[in-house]
Amino acid sequence: MVVLHEPYIQAALKEARRGRDEGGVPIGCVLVRNGEIVGAGHNRRVQKSSAILHGEMDALEATGRKPGLWHKDVTLYTTLSPCAMCSGAILLYGIPRVVIGENASFMGEEALLRERGVELTVLDDADCKQLMADFMQASPELWNEDIGV
Amino acid sequence: MVVLHEPYIQAALKEARRGRDEGGVPIGCVLVRNGEIVGAGHNRRVQKSSAILHGEMDALEATGRKPGLWHKDVTLYTTLSPCAMCSGAILLYGIPRVVIGENASFMGEEALLRERGVELTVLDDADCKQLMADFMQASPELWNEDIGV
Repeated sequence: MVVLHEPYIQAALKEARRGRDEGGVPIGCVLVRNGEIVGAGHNRRVQKSSAILHGEMDALEATGRKPGLWHKDVTLYTTLSPCAMCSGAILLYGIPRVVIGENASFMGEEALLRERGVELTVLDDADCKQLMADFMQASPELWNEDIGV
Repeated sequence: MVVLHEPYIQAALKEARRGRDEGGVPIGCVLVRNGEIVGAGHNRRVQKSSAILHGEMDALEATGRKPGLWHKDVTLYTTLSPCAMCSGAILLYGIPRVVIGENASFMGEEALLRERGVELTVLDDADCKQLMADFMQASPELWNEDIGV
């Protein structure tokens, strides 16, 4: 089966741009289950003064409580390679597939995810890269805070 | 320097019991920095209908936004061995020391944390174990939901 990633990464990118327009960290995420977007979110460190609402976490929270095995049918789309926290959440819930807009701006825990059997696709998307490049140049301290360095 | 864990794990246990009394998953956590409790939280899956507020995440969120290197002086106390998500958050923020009430009820990502240089202390605390044993027997479905199985 050919999976067309484009509409889903575009939805994640739309979330990321919403984050940027709100003055936040421009990273977005959608969860897809059986072809349907079941949750969407973006980094809300600034907007909610949050230490844990990365884009992926915000999307998981927006999706809400689910039975134990529910996430086993989910594909997670994120505009940026997932950090240790978000990768850990992916492992906790057993999300089997992750599609990543780009990992040139930041390399997350891709090796760990692969080692644990998660199927990763990196799109190397130019729009995702440009959005992060602009942000990292404009707000280096906020970016460092977001990744704990 | 001898570090006395007792008051801090008791504070985490108090959080866990608060969670139990609210009808939630009884896991608690405090963050300690320079001997002072700077954040406390407990699992609020039930209370906030949350997919991400494990005890450790709730404590990080309660502690709030901090500069990039701030968590490098933190010791995290949790009543139960931290799952993949919470371990990932520990790695993201570079928290160097984790004190665990018990890991008999659930073994989290201790091997990964050790491999990444986090110093772990497991107290094998009887009260922590009893609290979880009672909960897991009373609410197995809620527990499975919390750990994605």
